Amino acid sequence: MENRPLDILNGSLNTPVIVRLKGAREFRGELQGYDVHMNLVLDKAEEIRDGESVRKMGSVVIRGDNVVYVSP
Amino acid sequence: MENRPLDILNGSLNTPVIVRLKGAREFRGELQGYDVHMNLVLDKAEEIRDGESVRKMGSVVIRGDNVVYVSP
Amino acid sequence: MENRPLDILNGSLNTPVIVRLKGAREFRGELQGYDVHMNLVLDKAEEIRDGESVRKMGSVVIRGDNVVYVSP
Amino acid sequence: MENRPLDILNGSLNTPVIVRLKGAREFRGELQGYDVHMNLVLDKAEEIRDGESVRKMGSVVIRGDNVVYVSP
Amino acid sequence: MENRPLDILNGSLNTPVIVRLKGAREFRGELQGYDVHMNLVLDKAEEIRDGESVRKMGSVVIRGDNVVYVSP
Amino acid sequence: MENRPLDILNGSLNTPVIVRLKGAREFRGELQGYDVHMNLVLDKAEEIRDGESVRKMGSVVIRGDNVVYVSP
Amino acid sequence: MENRPLDILNGSLNTPVIVRLKGAREFRGELQGYDVHMNLVLDKAEEIRDGESVRKMGSVVIRGDNVVYVSP
Repeated sequence: MENRPLDILNGSLNTPVIVRLKGAREFRGELQGYDVHMNLVLDKAEEIRDGESVRKMGSVVIRGDNVVYVSP
Repeated sequence: MENRPLDILNGSLNTPVIVRLKGAREFRGELQGYDVHMNLVLDKAEEIRDGESVRKMGSVVIRGDNVVYVSP
Repeated sequence: MENRPLDILNGSLNTPVIVRLKGAREFRGELQGYDVHMNLVLDKAEEIRDGESVRKMGSVVIRGDNVVYVSP
Repeated sequence: MENRPLDILNGSLNTPVIVRLKGAREFRGELQGYDVHMNLVLDKAEEIRDGESVRKMGSVVIRGDNVVYVSP
Repeated sequence: MENRPLDILNGSLNTPVIVRLKGAREFRGELQGYDVHMNLVLDKAEEIRDGESVRKMGSVVIRGDNVVYVSP
Repeated sequence: MENRPLDILNGSLNTPVIVRLKGAREFRGELQGYDVHMNLVLDKAEEIRDGESVRKMGSVVIRGDNVVYVSP
Repeated sequence: MENRPLDILNGSLNTPVIVRLKGAREFRGELQGYDVHMNLVLDKAEEIRDGESVRKMGSVVIRGDNVVYVSP
Protein backbone atom coordinates (compact mmCIF):
# COMPACT_ATOMS: atom_id res chain seq x y z
CA MET A 1 0.00 0.00 0.00
CA GLU A 2 1.19 3.46 -0.93
CA ASN A 3 0.87 6.43 1.39
CA ARG A 4 2.50 9.23 -0.56
CA PRO A 5 0.51 12.47 -0.77
CA LEU A 6 -0.74 11.92 -4.33
CA ASP A 7 -1.63 8.30 -3.53
CA ILE A 8 -3.91 9.54 -0.78
CA LEU A 9 -5.54 11.99 -3.17
CA ASN A 10 -5.95 9.18 -5.67
CA GLY A 11 -7.60 7.01 -3.05
CA SER A 12 -9.99 9.85 -2.23
CA LEU A 13 -11.39 10.23 -5.75
CA ASN A 14 -15.20 10.33 -5.79
CA THR A 15 -15.39 10.77 -2.02
CA PRO A 16 -16.07 13.91 0.05
CA VAL A 17 -13.06 16.01 1.11
CA ILE A 18 -12.37 19.21 3.01
CA VAL A 19 -9.92 21.55 1.28
CA ARG A 20 -8.40 24.30 3.38
CA LEU A 21 -6.99 27.24 1.44
CA LYS A 22 -4.71 30.08 2.48
CA GLY A 23 -6.63 33.03 3.88
CA ALA A 24 -9.38 31.31 5.90
CA ARG A 25 -11.18 29.95 2.85
CA GLU A 26 -12.42 26.37 2.83
CA PHE A 27 -14.12 24.10 0.32
CA ARG A 28 -16.12 20.95 0.78
CA GLY A 29 -17.04 18.69 -2.09
CA GLU A 30 -16.35 15.44 -3.87
CA LEU A 31 -12.83 15.09 -5.21
CA GLN A 32 -13.11 14.45 -8.94
CA GLY A 33 -9.54 15.02 -10.04
CA TYR A 34 -6.08 16.37 -9.18
CA ASP A 35 -2.64 16.77 -10.72
CA VAL A 36 0.99 16.92 -9.52
CA HIS A 37 0.68 20.62 -8.58
CA MET A 38 -2.19 19.66 -6.28
CA ASN A 39 -4.58 21.51 -8.54
CA LEU A 40 -7.92 19.96 -7.57
CA VAL A 41 -11.35 19.40 -9.08
CA LEU A 42 -14.30 19.29 -6.69
CA ASP A 43 -17.88 18.44 -7.54
CA LYS A 44 -20.96 19.51 -5.55
CA ALA A 45 -18.61 22.09 -4.05
CA GLU A 46 -19.39 24.55 -1.34
CA GLU A 47 -17.22 27.46 -0.23
CA ILE A 48 -17.13 27.97 3.54
CA ARG A 49 -16.03 31.12 5.40
CA ASP A 50 -15.92 31.21 9.20
CA GLY A 51 -17.95 28.04 9.28
CA GLU A 52 -20.73 29.33 7.02
CA SER A 53 -21.50 28.33 3.46
CA VAL A 54 -21.00 31.39 1.25
CA ARG A 55 -21.32 29.88 -2.23
CA LYS A 56 -22.41 26.61 -3.82
CA MET A 57 -20.89 25.53 -7.12
CA GLY A 58 -21.64 22.57 -9.33
CA SER A 59 -17.93 22.09 -9.85
CA VAL A 60 -14.72 24.02 -9.23
CA VAL A 61 -11.07 23.86 -10.27
CA ILE A 62 -8.80 25.00 -7.41
CA ARG A 63 -5.24 26.10 -8.20
CA GLY A 64 -2.87 24.04 -6.09
CA ASP A 65 -0.70 26.85 -4.74
CA ASN A 66 -3.66 28.04 -2.63
CA VAL A 67 -4.04 24.71 -0.84
CA VAL A 68 -2.97 24.33 2.79
CA TYR A 69 -4.36 20.85 3.27
CA VAL A 70 -6.83 18.30 1.95
CA SER A 71 -8.61 16.03 4.38
CA PRO A 72 -10.45 12.98 3.04
CA MET B 1 -13.91 10.55 -19.19
CA GLU B 2 -11.10 12.65 -17.75
CA ASN B 3 -11.50 14.77 -14.65
CA ARG B 4 -8.07 16.30 -14.19
CA PRO B 5 -7.98 20.06 -13.62
CA LEU B 6 -6.92 20.96 -17.17
CA ASP B 7 -9.49 18.54 -18.62
CA ILE B 8 -12.21 20.46 -16.80
CA LEU B 9 -10.88 23.74 -18.18
CA ASN B 10 -10.81 22.19 -21.63
CA GLY B 11 -14.41 21.07 -21.27
CA SER B 12 -15.37 24.61 -20.26
CA LEU B 13 -14.06 26.33 -23.39
CA ASN B 14 -16.60 28.72 -24.91
CA THR B 15 -18.83 28.57 -21.84
CA PRO B 16 -19.27 31.09 -18.99
CA VAL B 17 -16.98 30.74 -15.96
CA ILE B 18 -16.34 32.50 -12.68
CA VAL B 19 -12.66 33.12 -11.93
CA ARG B 20 -11.76 34.01 -8.36
CA LEU B 21 -8.44 35.76 -7.91
CA LYS B 22 -6.33 36.42 -4.83
CA GLY B 23 -7.29 39.66 -3.11
CA ALA B 24 -11.08 39.66 -3.45
CA ARG B 25 -11.03 40.18 -7.22
CA GLU B 26 -13.34 38.14 -9.44
CA PHE B 27 -13.92 37.81 -13.15
CA ARG B 28 -16.86 36.50 -15.10
CA GLY B 29 -16.68 35.76 -18.79
CA GLU B 30 -16.47 33.09 -21.47
CA LEU B 31 -13.39 30.91 -21.24
CA GLN B 32 -11.59 31.16 -24.57
CA GLY B 33 -8.25 29.63 -23.72
CA TYR B 34 -5.85 28.46 -21.02
CA ASP B 35 -2.39 26.91 -20.64
CA VAL B 36 -0.57 24.65 -18.18
CA HIS B 37 0.16 27.56 -15.81
CA MET B 38 -3.59 28.19 -15.62
CA ASN B 39 -3.10 31.44 -17.47
CA LEU B 40 -6.61 32.11 -18.79
CA VAL B 41 -8.28 33.98 -21.63
CA LEU B 42 -11.79 35.30 -21.00
CA ASP B 43 -14.09 36.93 -23.51
CA LYS B 44 -16.95 39.32 -22.69
CA ALA B 45 -15.19 39.67 -19.35
CA GLU B 46 -16.36 41.62 -16.37
CA GLU B 47 -14.35 42.40 -13.24
CA ILE B 48 -16.34 42.12 -10.01
CA ARG B 49 -15.44 43.63 -6.62
CA ASP B 50 -17.59 43.01 -3.56
CA GLY B 51 -20.33 41.75 -5.82
CA GLU B 52 -20.36 44.80 -8.10
CA SER B 53 -19.16 45.07 -11.68
CA VAL B 54 -16.24 47.51 -11.74
CA ARG B 55 -14.98 47.11 -15.31
CA LYS B 56 -16.09 45.45 -18.56
CA MET B 57 -13.51 44.23 -21.02
CA GLY B 58 -13.88 42.73 -24.47
CA SER B 59 -11.24 40.20 -23.60
CA VAL B 60 -8.63 39.66 -20.91
CA VAL B 61 -5.56 37.48 -20.33
CA ILE B 62 -5.26 36.53 -16.64
CA ARG B 63 -1.89 35.37 -15.30
CA GLY B 64 -2.37 31.98 -13.66
CA ASP B 65 -0.55 32.63 -10.40
CA ASN B 66 -3.36 35.02 -9.37
CA VAL B 67 -6.06 32.37 -9.71
CA VAL B 68 -7.67 30.85 -6.62
CA TYR B 69 -10.33 28.89 -8.46
CA VAL B 70 -12.27 28.61 -11.70
CA SER B 71 -15.88 27.53 -11.59
CA PRO B 72 -17.59 26.49 -14.82
CA MET C 1 -7.62 30.24 -34.74
CA GLU C 2 -5.67 29.97 -31.52
CA ASN C 3 -6.92 31.37 -28.24
CA ARG C 4 -4.23 30.40 -25.77
CA PRO C 5 -2.98 33.19 -23.52
CA LEU C 6 0.25 33.82 -25.42
CA ASP C 7 -1.63 33.74 -28.75
CA ILE C 8 -3.80 36.58 -27.51
CA LEU C 9 -0.72 38.56 -26.49
CA ASN C 10 0.78 37.86 -29.89
CA GLY C 11 -2.36 39.12 -31.60
CA SER C 12 -2.19 42.30 -29.50
CA LEU C 13 1.30 43.35 -30.61
CA ASN C 14 1.45 46.99 -31.69
CA THR C 15 -1.99 47.73 -30.25
CA PRO C 16 -2.97 49.50 -27.00
CA VAL C 17 -3.37 47.35 -23.90
CA ILE C 18 -4.20 47.80 -20.23
CA VAL C 19 -1.86 45.93 -17.85
CA ARG C 20 -3.04 45.51 -14.28
CA LEU C 21 -0.31 44.78 -11.75
CA LYS C 22 -0.45 43.53 -8.19
CA GLY C 23 -0.81 46.35 -5.68
CA ALA C 24 -3.21 48.71 -7.47
CA ARG C 25 -0.71 49.69 -10.16
CA GLU C 26 -1.79 49.86 -13.79
CA PHE C 27 -0.07 50.55 -17.09
CA ARG C 28 -1.45 51.61 -20.43
CA GLY C 29 0.58 51.54 -23.59
CA GLU C 30 1.25 49.77 -26.86
CA LEU C 31 2.33 46.17 -26.48
CA GLN C 32 5.69 45.81 -28.24
CA GLY C 33 6.83 42.44 -26.94
CA TYR C 34 6.38 39.64 -24.45
CA ASP C 35 7.88 36.29 -23.49
CA VAL C 36 6.72 33.02 -21.91
CA HIS C 37 6.99 34.45 -18.36
CA MET C 38 4.56 37.18 -19.43
CA ASN C 39 7.34 39.74 -19.14
CA LEU C 40 6.00 42.59 -21.26
CA VAL C 41 7.33 45.52 -23.27
CA LEU C 42 5.08 48.56 -23.57
CA ASP C 43 5.70 51.65 -25.69
CA LYS C 44 4.20 55.11 -25.05
CA ALA C 45 3.55 53.76 -21.57
CA GLU C 46 1.74 55.52 -18.78
CA GLU C 47 1.56 54.40 -15.15
CA ILE C 48 -1.87 54.88 -13.57
CA ARG C 49 -2.67 54.93 -9.83
CA ASP C 50 -6.24 55.27 -8.59
CA GLY C 51 -7.29 56.32 -12.06
CA GLU C 52 -4.67 59.08 -12.41
CA SER C 53 -1.59 59.14 -14.59
CA VAL C 54 1.45 59.28 -12.30
CA ARG C 55 4.29 58.78 -14.78
CA LYS C 56 4.82 58.69 -18.56
CA MET C 57 7.57 56.58 -20.03
CA GLY C 58 8.77 56.20 -23.59
CA SER C 59 9.03 52.47 -23.04
CA VAL C 60 8.97 50.04 -20.16
CA VAL C 61 9.85 46.38 -19.50
CA ILE C 62 7.45 44.87 -16.94
CA ARG C 63 8.47 41.70 -15.08
CA GLY C 64 5.77 39.08 -15.60
CA ASP C 65 5.32 37.97 -12.01
CA ASN C 66 3.76 41.36 -11.20
CA VAL C 67 1.02 41.00 -13.82
CA VAL C 68 -2.58 40.28 -12.77
CA TYR C 69 -4.09 40.67 -16.22
CA VAL C 70 -3.58 42.14 -19.67
CA SER C 71 -6.57 43.47 -21.54
CA PRO C 72 -6.21 44.23 -25.26
CA MET D 1 23.56 6.49 8.26
CA GLU D 2 21.98 9.30 6.25
CA ASN D 3 20.90 12.57 7.79
CA ARG D 4 19.54 14.50 4.82
CA PRO D 5 16.13 16.11 5.36
CA LEU D 6 14.17 13.49 3.41
CA ASP D 7 16.05 10.68 5.16
CA ILE D 8 14.86 12.02 8.49
CA LEU D 9 11.29 12.13 7.21
CA ASN D 10 11.69 8.59 5.96
CA GLY D 11 12.94 7.46 9.35
CA SER D 12 9.91 9.09 10.97
CA LEU D 13 7.30 7.16 9.01
CA ASN D 14 4.61 5.66 11.25
CA THR D 15 5.73 7.72 14.24
CA PRO D 16 4.19 10.86 15.78
CA VAL D 17 5.43 14.23 14.45
CA ILE D 18 4.73 17.91 15.01
CA VAL D 19 4.29 19.92 11.80
CA ARG D 20 4.52 23.68 12.09
CA LEU D 21 2.93 25.63 9.26
CA LYS D 22 3.19 29.28 8.24
CA GLY D 23 0.66 31.45 10.03
CA ALA D 24 0.62 29.93 13.53
CA ARG D 25 -1.02 26.70 12.45
CA GLU D 26 0.29 23.37 13.75
CA PHE D 27 -0.51 19.73 13.18
CA ARG D 28 0.20 16.67 15.24
CA GLY D 29 -0.22 13.19 13.92
CA GLU D 30 1.49 10.07 12.63
CA LEU D 31 3.59 10.61 9.52
CA GLN D 32 2.28 8.23 6.87
CA GLY D 33 3.94 9.62 3.76
CA TYR D 34 5.84 12.49 2.14
CA ASP D 35 7.33 13.47 -1.21
CA VAL D 36 10.22 15.63 -2.47
CA HIS D 37 8.15 18.85 -2.15
CA MET D 38 7.69 18.00 1.53
CA ASN D 39 4.02 17.40 0.92
CA LEU D 40 3.05 15.31 3.94
CA VAL D 41 0.43 12.74 4.91
CA LEU D 42 -0.55 12.57 8.57
CA ASP D 43 -2.83 10.05 10.21
CA LYS D 44 -4.80 10.57 13.44
CA ALA D 45 -4.15 14.25 12.78
CA GLU D 46 -5.09 17.14 14.99
CA GLU D 47 -4.90 20.83 14.09
CA ILE D 48 -3.61 23.05 16.90
CA ARG D 49 -4.01 26.83 17.19
CA ASP D 50 -2.46 28.75 20.06
CA GLY D 51 -1.90 25.47 21.87
CA GLU D 52 -5.50 24.28 21.56
CA SER D 53 -6.87 21.50 19.41
CA VAL D 54 -9.27 23.05 16.89
CA ARG D 55 -9.99 20.08 14.61
CA LYS D 56 -9.38 16.33 14.53
CA MET D 57 -9.03 14.54 11.23
CA GLY D 58 -8.64 10.89 10.39
CA SER D 59 -6.02 11.78 7.84
CA VAL D 60 -4.73 14.88 6.10
CA VAL D 61 -2.55 15.76 3.10
CA ILE D 62 -0.53 18.93 3.79
CA ARG D 63 0.92 20.87 0.85
CA GLY D 64 4.65 21.25 1.39
CA ASP D 65 4.99 24.96 0.70
CA ASN D 66 3.09 25.68 3.94
CA VAL D 67 5.56 23.78 6.10
CA VAL D 68 7.99 25.64 8.36
CA TYR D 69 9.35 22.59 10.12
CA VAL D 70 8.66 18.96 10.98
CA SER D 71 9.79 17.62 14.31
CA PRO D 72 9.82 13.83 14.86
CA MET E 1 14.07 44.30 -35.08
CA GLU E 2 13.41 42.40 -31.87
CA ASN E 3 11.16 43.72 -29.13
CA ARG E 4 11.13 40.94 -26.58
CA PRO E 5 11.79 41.99 -22.99
CA LEU E 6 15.40 40.83 -22.89
CA ASP E 7 16.08 42.44 -26.27
CA ILE E 8 15.01 45.77 -24.83
CA LEU E 9 17.31 45.28 -21.85
CA ASN E 10 20.10 44.38 -24.24
CA GLY E 11 19.49 47.53 -26.25
CA SER E 12 19.64 49.56 -23.04
CA LEU E 13 23.13 48.44 -21.99
CA ASN E 14 25.37 51.37 -21.05
CA THR E 15 22.46 53.80 -20.97
CA PRO E 16 20.56 55.26 -17.97
CA VAL E 17 17.52 53.32 -16.72
CA ILE E 18 14.94 53.58 -13.96
CA VAL E 19 14.35 50.33 -12.05
CA ARG E 20 11.23 50.12 -9.94
CA LEU E 21 11.28 47.50 -7.20
CA LYS E 22 8.52 46.05 -5.07
CA GLY E 23 7.93 48.05 -1.90
CA ALA E 24 8.33 51.63 -3.16
CA ARG E 25 12.06 51.30 -3.77
CA GLU E 26 13.58 52.68 -6.98
CA PHE E 27 17.02 52.71 -8.54
CA ARG E 28 18.51 54.91 -11.21
CA GLY E 29 21.77 54.13 -12.91
CA GLU E 30 23.48 52.87 -16.05
CA LEU E 31 22.51 49.34 -17.02
CA GLN E 32 25.74 47.32 -17.21
CA GLY E 33 24.37 43.79 -17.32
CA TYR E 34 21.39 41.49 -16.90
CA ASP E 35 20.47 37.80 -17.12
CA VAL E 36 17.38 35.72 -17.90
CA HIS E 37 16.02 36.10 -14.34
CA MET E 38 16.13 39.87 -14.86
CA ASN E 39 18.90 40.12 -12.30
CA LEU E 40 20.42 43.50 -13.15
CA VAL E 41 23.74 45.31 -12.79
CA LEU E 42 23.64 49.09 -12.49
CA ASP E 43 26.59 51.45 -12.44
CA LYS E 44 26.60 54.96 -10.90
CA ALA E 45 23.53 53.74 -9.07
CA GLU E 46 21.32 55.75 -6.77
CA GLU E 47 18.56 54.40 -4.55
CA ILE E 48 15.45 56.59 -4.45
CA ARG E 49 12.68 56.53 -1.82
CA ASP E 50 9.63 58.78 -2.13
CA GLY E 51 11.43 60.79 -4.76
CA GLU E 52 14.56 61.39 -2.68
CA SER E 53 18.02 59.91 -3.11
CA VAL E 54 18.78 57.80 -0.03
CA ARG E 55 22.01 56.08 -1.07
CA LYS E 56 24.59 56.33 -3.87
CA MET E 57 26.52 53.24 -4.90
CA GLY E 58 29.31 52.78 -7.40
CA SER E 59 27.63 49.64 -8.62
CA VAL E 60 24.85 47.32 -7.55
CA VAL E 61 23.56 43.83 -8.41
CA ILE E 62 19.76 43.70 -8.09
CA ARG E 63 18.03 40.32 -7.73
CA GLY E 64 15.43 40.00 -10.46
CA ASP E 65 12.50 38.83 -8.37
CA ASN E 66 12.34 42.29 -6.76
CA VAL E 67 11.87 44.09 -10.07
CA VAL E 68 8.50 45.55 -11.05
CA TYR E 69 9.67 47.32 -14.17
CA VAL E 70 12.71 48.70 -15.96
CA SER E 71 12.34 51.86 -18.00
CA PRO E 72 15.14 52.82 -20.41
CA MET F 1 39.19 25.12 -0.42
CA GLU F 2 35.63 25.80 -1.56
CA ASN F 3 33.52 28.64 -0.24
CA ARG F 4 30.22 28.19 -2.04
CA PRO F 5 27.12 28.27 0.17
CA LEU F 6 26.58 24.50 0.24
CA ASP F 7 30.28 23.92 0.92
CA ILE F 8 30.00 26.04 4.03
CA LEU F 9 26.95 24.06 5.16
CA ASN F 10 28.88 20.87 4.49
CA GLY F 11 31.79 22.10 6.57
CA SER F 12 29.37 22.90 9.41
CA LEU F 13 27.95 19.39 9.76
CA ASN F 14 27.92 18.16 13.36
CA THR F 15 28.67 21.64 14.71
CA PRO F 16 26.33 24.21 16.33
CA VAL F 17 24.60 26.71 14.02
CA ILE F 18 22.12 29.57 14.29
CA VAL F 19 19.31 29.43 11.72
CA ARG F 20 17.31 32.59 11.22
CA LEU F 21 13.88 32.13 9.65
CA LYS F 22 11.46 34.59 8.12
CA GLY F 23 9.11 36.11 10.69
CA ALA F 24 11.42 36.57 13.69
CA ARG F 25 11.82 32.85 14.35
CA GLU F 26 15.25 31.41 15.11
CA PHE F 27 16.68 27.97 15.73
CA ARG F 28 19.85 26.86 17.39
CA GLY F 29 21.13 23.33 17.18
CA GLU F 30 23.68 21.00 15.62
CA LEU F 31 23.53 20.80 11.84
CA GLN F 32 23.00 17.15 10.94
CA GLY F 33 22.03 17.44 7.29
CA TYR F 34 20.95 19.69 4.42
CA ASP F 35 20.04 19.49 0.73
CA VAL F 36 20.19 21.76 -2.33
CA HIS F 37 16.96 23.58 -1.35
CA MET F 38 18.63 24.47 1.95
CA ASN F 39 16.23 22.20 3.78
CA LEU F 40 18.07 21.60 7.05
CA VAL F 41 18.22 18.99 9.80
CA LEU F 42 19.11 20.19 13.28
CA ASP F 43 19.74 18.05 16.34
CA LYS F 44 19.38 19.19 19.97
CA ALA F 45 17.34 22.01 18.48
CA GLU F 46 15.84 24.92 20.32
CA GLU F 47 13.38 27.46 18.90
CA ILE F 48 14.06 31.04 19.98
CA ARG F 49 11.62 33.98 19.85
CA ASP F 50 12.70 37.47 20.86
CA GLY F 51 15.80 36.00 22.45
CA GLU F 52 13.92 33.44 24.58
CA SER F 53 13.79 29.69 24.15
CA VAL F 54 10.18 28.71 23.39
CA ARG F 55 10.55 25.04 22.50
CA LYS F 56 13.19 22.31 22.68
CA MET F 57 13.17 19.50 20.16
CA GLY F 58 15.31 16.41 19.85
CA SER F 59 15.54 16.99 16.13
CA VAL F 60 13.85 19.12 13.50
CA VAL F 61 13.61 19.27 9.70
CA ILE F 62 13.34 22.90 8.52
CA ARG F 63 11.98 23.61 5.04
CA GLY F 64 14.53 25.68 3.15
CA ASP F 65 12.24 28.39 1.82
CA ASN F 66 11.81 29.71 5.38
CA VAL F 67 15.53 30.27 5.89
CA VAL F 68 16.99 33.78 5.90
CA TYR F 69 20.48 32.80 6.95
CA VAL F 70 22.55 30.09 8.61
CA SER F 71 25.49 31.08 10.74
CA PRO F 72 28.02 28.40 11.75
CA MET G 1 35.08 42.05 -19.74
CA GLU G 2 31.82 40.55 -18.54
CA ASN G 3 29.17 42.51 -16.69
CA ARG G 4 26.47 39.97 -16.03
CA PRO G 5 25.19 39.80 -12.45
CA LEU G 6 27.12 36.67 -11.46
CA ASP G 7 30.28 38.07 -13.07
CA ILE G 8 30.06 41.08 -10.81
CA LEU G 9 29.63 38.82 -7.77
CA ASN G 10 32.62 36.81 -8.95
CA GLY G 11 34.70 39.94 -9.27
CA SER G 12 33.71 40.92 -5.72
CA LEU G 13 35.00 37.77 -4.03
CA ASN G 14 37.18 38.53 -1.01
CA THR G 15 36.13 42.18 -0.96
CA PRO G 16 33.61 43.98 1.31
CA VAL G 17 30.00 44.13 0.14
CA ILE G 18 26.68 45.45 1.39
CA VAL G 19 23.79 42.98 1.10
CA ARG G 20 20.30 44.38 1.40
CA LEU G 21 17.60 41.87 2.33
CA LYS G 22 13.83 42.07 2.20
CA GLY G 23 12.34 43.48 5.39
CA ALA G 24 14.85 46.23 6.26
CA ARG G 25 17.65 43.81 7.13
CA GLU G 26 21.17 44.46 5.89
CA PHE G 27 24.48 42.65 6.06
CA ARG G 28 28.02 43.89 5.63
CA GLY G 29 30.95 41.55 5.24
CA GLU G 30 33.48 40.05 2.87
CA LEU G 31 31.96 38.05 0.04
CA GLN G 32 33.45 34.55 0.23
CA GLY G 33 31.14 32.65 -2.08
CA TYR G 34 27.88 32.60 -4.05
CA ASP G 35 25.88 30.33 -6.34
CA VAL G 36 23.38 30.70 -9.18
CA HIS G 37 20.46 31.26 -6.77
CA MET G 38 22.40 34.20 -5.34
CA ASN G 39 22.87 32.31 -2.10
CA LEU G 40 25.81 34.15 -0.55
CA VAL G 41 28.60 33.48 1.93
CA LEU G 42 29.90 36.44 3.92
CA ASP G 43 32.86 36.48 6.27
CA LYS G 44 33.39 38.95 9.13
CA ALA G 45 29.67 39.59 8.75
CA GLU G 46 27.61 42.12 10.63
CA GLU G 47 23.83 42.41 10.62
CA ILE G 48 22.55 45.98 10.47
CA ARG G 49 19.04 47.20 11.38
CA ASP G 50 18.07 50.85 10.98
CA GLY G 51 21.72 51.73 10.58
CA GLU G 52 22.85 49.98 13.77
CA SER G 53 24.86 46.79 14.12
CA VAL G 54 22.67 44.19 15.86
CA ARG G 55 24.79 41.07 15.52
CA LYS G 56 28.34 40.11 14.49
CA MET G 57 29.02 36.71 12.99
CA GLY G 58 32.23 35.05 11.94
CA SER G 59 30.55 33.83 8.81
CA VAL G 60 27.04 33.55 7.43
CA VAL G 61 25.23 31.75 4.58
CA ILE G 62 22.38 33.91 3.24
CA ARG G 63 19.60 32.26 1.22
CA GLY G 64 19.34 34.03 -2.12
CA ASP G 65 15.59 34.57 -2.21
CA ASN G 66 15.93 37.11 0.62
CA VAL G 67 18.34 39.31 -1.30
CA VAL G 68 17.21 42.65 -2.74
CA TYR G 69 20.62 43.82 -3.87
CA VAL G 70 24.35 43.34 -3.38
CA SER G 71 26.63 46.33 -3.64
CA PRO G 72 30.40 45.77 -3.94
